[in-house]
Amino acid sequence: MKPFNKYFEHTLLKPDATEAEVVKLFEEALKYDFYGVCIDGCYMPHAWEHLEGSGIMIATVIGFPLGTMATSSKAAETWEALDDGAEEVDAMINVGALKDGRYDYVGGEISMLAEMCHKENAEFKIILETCLLTDDEIVKACDLAKRAKADFIKTSTGFSTGGATVEAVKLIRETVGDDVKIKASGGIRTLDQAIALIEAGADRIGSSNCVEIMEEYLKTGKEPKL
Amino acid sequence: MKPFNKYFEHTLLKPDATEAEVVKLFEEALKYDFYGVCIDGCYMPHAWEHLEGSGIMIATVIGFPLGTMATSSKAAETWEALDDGAEEVDAMINVGALKDGRYDYVGGEISMLAEMCHKENAEFKIILETCLLTDDEIVKACDLAKRAKADFIKTSTGFSTGGATVEAVKLIRETVGDDVKIKASGGIRTLDQAIALIEAGADRIGSSNCVEIMEEYLKTGKEPKL
Repeated sequence: MKPFNKYFEHTLLKPDATEAEVVKLFEEALKYDFYGVCIDGCYMPHAWEHLEGSGIMIATVIGFPLGTMATSSKAAETWEALDDGAEEVDAMINVGALKDGRYDYVGGEISMLAEMCHKENAEFKIILETCLLTDDEIVKACDLAKRAKADFIKTSTGFSTGGATVEAVKLIRETVGDDVKIKASGGIRTLDQAIALIEAGADRIGSSNCVEIMEEYLKTGKEPKL
Repeated sequence: MKPFNKYFEHTLLKPDATEAEVVKLFEEALKYDFYGVCIDGCYMPHAWEHLEGSGIMIATVIGFPLGTMATSSKAAETWEALDDGAEEVDAMINVGALKDGRYDYVGGEISMLAEMCHKENAEFKIILETCLLTDDEIVKACDLAKRAKADFIKTSTGFSTGGATVEAVKLIRETVGDDVKIKASGGIRTLDQAIALIEAGADRIGSSNCVEIMEEYLKTGKEPKL
């Protein structure tokens, strides 16, 4: 198992995030040596200023959290993120189009964004918002993501009706095998939740509560059984 | 007073909106002859297909609902919306930057987006998300919006901790006088709410519940006292 702290993407995504809050996030990421941070696009320059050379990965989000902008707008936002130095990009899928069975549209969008990222040596995550999907829709989205060469499937934005669940992570893992990594995110507040999700197959945990989870880990020594 | 139906922007903004739902929205807008519709960027072509020549205004959203993307990404999304034929554009302000007192950043962003819209004869609305702001911050945002020549100040996205309030609409009206229009939106479910917001100074009501509000209006005949 990799070091427990390296499972975590320390996350701050909210409309009223201030510079002081985002700087605090960077300092915490450095202190605990998390895998990375996930921040809003407007704070990419701040991330580079504070994290350059640290080895902490910098991720940002696209079409977040609704996923309903035009494809060309998602592409433009992805281009801006890569130009600003994003090392991983988390883009929200178009859920409505998925539900309508418009698989060429949904798959084409994922494929284009993934290709843009790969050309810049960045990794690409597609967010499913599993709480809005049936199991069949999750499987279909996983197939599209795998075919489009997404590096990660991410469960949730944290802005919908539910977050990451053990059931969803297991279903994604069963569907994609070892070809695609899984980021569990949304509503992950405790060490027990993080451990359960990692044991279910998550490669990465996204949370705004990483410090509390790590402190609980350091105190108890509890860790995933893999 | 203008006809009551002409206060309303019939709205569907959600990650899982399907084509059938958006088409239903257009049909309802035609039936009740609402002022306009407000839809996600991915449905702009559908809007033109169903509403062209009808006189129903087509609006879409930018940086929605968080407002935290890079300015250049908001510009690209606005460009796409205008190119797709948006007649009004509702963009979310950067709340964190406003709270940090970065007024050049916030005002410059509003100014650039407003100018892009005006060049294409579209109207520009800036969304404040008043539930996240103090009264002083609302006043400051209004000043920035007025100076940047925004056509409308819009209260809320409907995705945060609260929606339009009579108090916020009154404060905005007191601050901007008659120079900027006001769109009240977020959580407006009933005729009484709509009437109270119009009486407080709203020029436009955005709601996903316009049909129910109009039916209540047609049944009761209750209307704003202006």
